[in-house]
Amino acid sequence: MNSIFKKDLYRYYGSEGEPFLKKVFRPLEIKYISVLRKANACKFLPLKLFYMLSLLHLSHKTHIQIPARTNIGEGFYIGHLGRVIIHPDAKLGKNINIGTGVTIGMQNRGVKKGTPVIGDNCWIGTNAVIVGNVKIGSDVLVAPLAYVNFDVPDHSIVIGNPGKIIPRQNATADYVCNRV
Amino acid sequence: MNSIFKKDLYRYYGSEGEPFLKKVFRPLEIKYISVLRKANACKFLPLKLFYMLSLLHLSHKTHIQIPARTNIGEGFYIGHLGRVIIHPDAKLGKNINIGTGVTIGMQNRGVKKGTPVIGDNCWIGTNAVIVGNVKIGSDVLVAPLAYVNFDVPDHSIVIGNPGKIIPRQNATADYVCNRV
Amino acid sequence: MNSIFKKDLYRYYGSEGEPFLKKVFRPLEIKYISVLRKANACKFLPLKLFYMLSLLHLSHKTHIQIPARTNIGEGFYIGHLGRVIIHPDAKLGKNINIGTGVTIGMQNRGVKKGTPVIGDNCWIGTNAVIVGNVKIGSDVLVAPLAYVNFDVPDHSIVIGNPGKIIPRQNATADYVCNRV
Repeated sequence: MNSIFKKDLYRYYGSEGEPFLKKVFRPLEIKYISVLRKANACKFLPLKLFYMLSLLHLSHKTHIQIPARTNIGEGFYIGHLGRVIIHPDAKLGKNINIGTGVTIGMQNRGVKKGTPVIGDNCWIGTNAVIVGNVKIGSDVLVAPLAYVNFDVPDHSIVIGNPGKIIPRQNATADYVCNRV
Repeated sequence: MNSIFKKDLYRYYGSEGEPFLKKVFRPLEIKYISVLRKANACKFLPLKLFYMLSLLHLSHKTHIQIPARTNIGEGFYIGHLGRVIIHPDAKLGKNINIGTGVTIGMQNRGVKKGTPVIGDNCWIGTNAVIVGNVKIGSDVLVAPLAYVNFDVPDHSIVIGNPGKIIPRQNATADYVCNRV
Repeated sequence: MNSIFKKDLYRYYGSEGEPFLKKVFRPLEIKYISVLRKANACKFLPLKLFYMLSLLHLSHKTHIQIPARTNIGEGFYIGHLGRVIIHPDAKLGKNINIGTGVTIGMQNRGVKKGTPVIGDNCWIGTNAVIVGNVKIGSDVLVAPLAYVNFDVPDHSIVIGNPGKIIPRQNATADYVCNRV
């Protein structure tokens, strides 16, 4: 098993293995992460293509659309089964939790043209959207349905649409668990 | 047929039966409710496990994720096919309408730590999110995209993010139809 | 191939044909548009029914729910795979881009009872919701997560929840590309 995927599993179960029943009926979002890590790491082209086709097949089932080359730190956690869209040029740090319905996308023009860079230990709630060349710090909790098209400093909560920044120490305590 | 599921069908069709074509091509969200009610009511363990596996299989198709033990009153209505996530500890009353993209979830810390309790005759619009140990009254219309992490009294509309409460008699008239 | 579907393809690829690999692995959202156009245009009843069943089957996979009779101008573009719900009585102009998680729906009561009419060259961001008998002009960019239940004039951006209108020339430049 891919060593980075073991770190992802640790986020889910607090250990690098899976409970027996969770392995037999592995949730589709965890399957997606497993194949994503393989497709990302593989250097042998025919096998890489096979993984990328598997990933496409899983995308059709899960509606998760994270291209294989996306730069995502270890300890990646998708909270439920459902659509998650991440632009391949976005960068995500370690211990990122993502809810369903989330988009991390591009702005096509203006001073914020580009894609987000997200630090470590962040929690992004369901249906939230982060777009543009913005820098999200570490220990940031993005509330469900928040719309973020601006920079966010470390240790913050972002809430509302348009989003408002609330500084807070340990913003993601009890939300980002089993950190690696 | 499960008697509580008949009440659910009444919400859709104004009668406890289904039109012939709707039965042959039963919408997946109604299939989900049908199996959810069976899995919830069944006392015979092997059969219950079979229903729970069917429910898991339907979750993979519909992205609806409502655990079998969730406490949901009769006359439950899911508006379209698509992701709906409800925490098993949440409690929903009678005649609840839920749109797609909705999450009814937990807050993990603070004074509102816990899951929502929702009264009767409520309509929850598409992409809305209700989280935390909050009490939503009866006859409450939660507008699409509203973010609700506070108590809402009876006869109210909640709209916006952050959500605002607008008192209104018959808040859900013409929205919650065919009540049981 | 349906001539209106060629215009839709033009929106994706800047030409009326598809790149070879995109044709072999045609994205499901483009498959949906292809069958939608066939089901809409077909006059021969048995074939129309076949297309409508194909469309239903694709709905189950993609969670896109746009009835065959919906009035949508040429150059229709769905940005990713995922739920999109459009009421059959809504009217959409030419060169419309729609993100995932979007609902274009009905209001059931009040002065805005009814469904939206949307002009040409509009971009509707992910998770946005447009409801009621409202008139959205041409060259309108609806930001992700915006909630729109009011009229919007030509050349505007709508952002926030509740949505705010910001007048802007070429509001959809760099967003609505390859116009037909």
